Amino acid sequence: MSVPEEKPSPSSEQATAPSALDSRAHRPLRIALLGFGTVGSSVARILVESRSEGLELTQIYVRSVARRHVDWVPASVQWSEDADAVLASDVDVIVELAGGIDPAGGWVRKALKSGKSVVTANKKLISLQGVELERLAASGGGQLKYGAAVAGGIPVIPGLEQGLAGDQIVRIEGILNGTCNFILSKMQEGAEYTPVLASAQSKGYAEADPTEDVGGFDARAKLAILMRLALRVHVDPEEIAPLPITSITSVDFIYARELGCTIRQIARADSAGGQIAASVGPMLVDMHSPLAWSRGTENMVIFTGHYGGDVVFSGHGAGGHPTAVAVVSDLLALAQGSRRVEIPTAPAHVSAEFEVPHYIRFMVNDKPGIIANITVALASEKINIRAIVQKPGYPQHALPFVMTVEPCKSSALKRAMECLRGKDYLLEEPLDLQMLE
Amino acid sequence: MSVPEEKPSPSSEQATAPSALDSRAHRPLRIALLGFGTVGSSVARILVESRSEGLELTQIYVRSVARRHVDWVPASVQWSEDADAVLASDVDVIVELAGGIDPAGGWVRKALKSGKSVVTANKKLISLQGVELERLAASGGGQLKYGAAVAGGIPVIPGLEQGLAGDQIVRIEGILNGTCNFILSKMQEGAEYTPVLASAQSKGYAEADPTEDVGGFDARAKLAILMRLALRVHVDPEEIAPLPITSITSVDFIYARELGCTIRQIARADSAGGQIAASVGPMLVDMHSPLAWSRGTENMVIFTGHYGGDVVFSGHGAGGHPTAVAVVSDLLALAQGSRRVEIPTAPAHVSAEFEVPHYIRFMVNDKPGIIANITVALASEKINIRAIVQKPGYPQHALPFVMTVEPCKSSALKRAMECLRGKDYLLEEPLDLQMLE
Repeated sequence: MSVPEEKPSPSSEQATAPSALDSRAHRPLRIALLGFGTVGSSVARILVESRSEGLELTQIYVRSVARRHVDWVPASVQWSEDADAVLASDVDVIVELAGGIDPAGGWVRKALKSGKSVVTANKKLISLQGVELERLAASGGGQLKYGAAVAGGIPVIPGLEQGLAGDQIVRIEGILNGTCNFILSKMQEGAEYTPVLASAQSKGYAEADPTEDVGGFDARAKLAILMRLALRVHVDPEEIAPLPITSITSVDFIYARELGCTIRQIARADSAGGQIAASVGPMLVDMHSPLAWSRGTENMVIFTGHYGGDVVFSGHGAGGHPTAVAVVSDLLALAQGSRRVEIPTAPAHVSAEFEVPHYIRFMVNDKPGIIANITVALASEKINIRAIVQKPGYPQHALPFVMTVEPCKSSALKRAMECLRGKDYLLEEPLDLQMLE
Repeated sequence: MSVPEEKPSPSSEQATAPSALDSRAHRPLRIALLGFGTVGSSVARILVESRSEGLELTQIYVRSVARRHVDWVPASVQWSEDADAVLASDVDVIVELAGGIDPAGGWVRKALKSGKSVVTANKKLISLQGVELERLAASGGGQLKYGAAVAGGIPVIPGLEQGLAGDQIVRIEGILNGTCNFILSKMQEGAEYTPVLASAQSKGYAEADPTEDVGGFDARAKLAILMRLALRVHVDPEEIAPLPITSITSVDFIYARELGCTIRQIARADSAGGQIAASVGPMLVDMHSPLAWSRGTENMVIFTGHYGGDVVFSGHGAGGHPTAVAVVSDLLALAQGSRRVEIPTAPAHVSAEFEVPHYIRFMVNDKPGIIANITVALASEKINIRAIVQKPGYPQHALPFVMTVEPCKSSALKRAMECLRGKDYLLEEPLDLQMLE
């Protein structure tokens, strides 16, 4: 024990001196909320109820103060209908919960340019403009945090940035849209799409226009954000063409079960062989996979690391309170001077080329020679058939049957299916789903 | 859009100015490893292979340099057999991977007192002395990070600190010991304890003396750490009396299955009604619970938040590479000036009082009146029986059977079992396991 209790050496002082945030001493972080919908009011609720040390809600912007003003918000909080005035005020952090690109993007830019920090749950904005906004934050001296933008209350983003930064993530597989998961897990139990969508809408799980969710656009935006943080590439989300879950019928769940699987909306990406591939849509997942366990509006993300293997996160991906937990956690991290672990990223193009097994469901007007015809098309692309399943009980003139094929390139399968285009026995285009293994 | 692109206001500058770590500019963080076993060599391997920006391995302490020296570590790294010299050197961060209290605790203290930061995977040290060491870090100006101390490669600690700090966690349920999970999941498939333990030992999943793992002491230390971060109380882990998994036999898996359950070593704690309760031991978990999904050496943790509901983390809880990912992630966070979100905690005593259903397995020399006798004892404590299960095929003179009871206080059940002590039909003390719901 020969080392004296010395003063920090200059080098370690550099490495460990408290950040400027600590020098705010006992003054709390002043917070303005832009938006007071489900998430905004939950954020205010948590801030008011839990009196989190170091956080002070000082302003709330809403379009109509008269309509939103509530009695449980302390009188010290200023309500305003003038977003520009809030942005120009002396708050330290802007919490942007308006969503969408406009006017939210302009507000976030203004705040970051003026050196304020921004906390947002806006996946659309971050997926499209995150790189630019982070640069703006860095040059303005503020921080941009968006833990709530993906998977709501599940700490996927802080877990990635702070806990998995030491790994090299090579694959992402996620259930990132609670609406689709609710619909598909109900369909798994036997329900039909249309009434389940209606029930999701009445429960507030789905919008009146559900396209953003069921079309895969919401999951795509979140996947693009995760790709940046996990695979360290920034991609244009619009390069990923999602397959809507509306292509799935109850017949597909019957066949999936026959194959030991169920169907979930999956957002997946990997960086195998230096190539970035991503896709979003309904896929078959093994009943024993964690992805099949998720029920209702739950979200789940599995990261596969070169060093650490698979890490699974799951929980409530949406809703006011879970999303607000992520926002308040980001605020606490700012208040304590925690800084994001910045990971260098590079721009990349996205391919849709995965080498995985596929499920192909045909709907045919049955006649001799169909299977022969299809197998020739598959053979022309050197695709091996794994299984052919045809359940009894369907009429001959509208007969669904399924083929599964061994891992093959998505593009090869697409070419094989091209050969079948226009065949008179096909009542509709074959449904081609990836199978996760 | 009336706000000009102004300079940061003084207040926002205070809130967001870069920390001193940034002022290290382009000098990387100098790192010394204390220990070069499985985890230490994995940490070195990742640092060497991934050339993480901002991290520089400069020294490695081992007891015998001649025995440990390996060719893939760059020549620039100094090997040393003198821990004190390493601690007195100009490194910024000490990575303590020796484990145990002594001499590791002394090294960590010395490093923190001299203003260095410390990254450690030492759950024993952190569970017993974490509060004191964190104070030491704060006063020395360094940081103490221990993301690797619980659940290895799964970012449970960063997820909690950075992503769930905004919630109020009210319950923790975890599978925190991979050795026990390996043994119990093999026993679930029909294997017996002794050969499975031997196989775990030959695979390196269990120590020659497995007491720390199978006795529940390892899981208890990890639970105490999670209780501090999640429930915000610091407790003496020795107040929690673990039940060893050695009390479980193949008969229990047969009866568990009959009840739709399996058995896992669970570490649980909750703060219901302001009382802190914790227990560690084999428990029955519903086959549909995420806890039943974990197989092999996997770890899993479920936090239940007042606002955000359940959040599940799972993955590889041990092993060189996964644990090293947690260590390197902590190093990256330090290099980038990220600071821990400090959560105020208070000391608390731990009770073992849960109000949950129980599984009680009796092993009797059968004769008339046993069930009547037991039910009277349970009734005296107002405990309701849920089910009585007796499978055929066992000899009358060594007959196992099971009762499950409705949720009751652990202490009431203990008193009821006390009444049966010394009964001549009991071949061994009844086995009492909590059932998770």
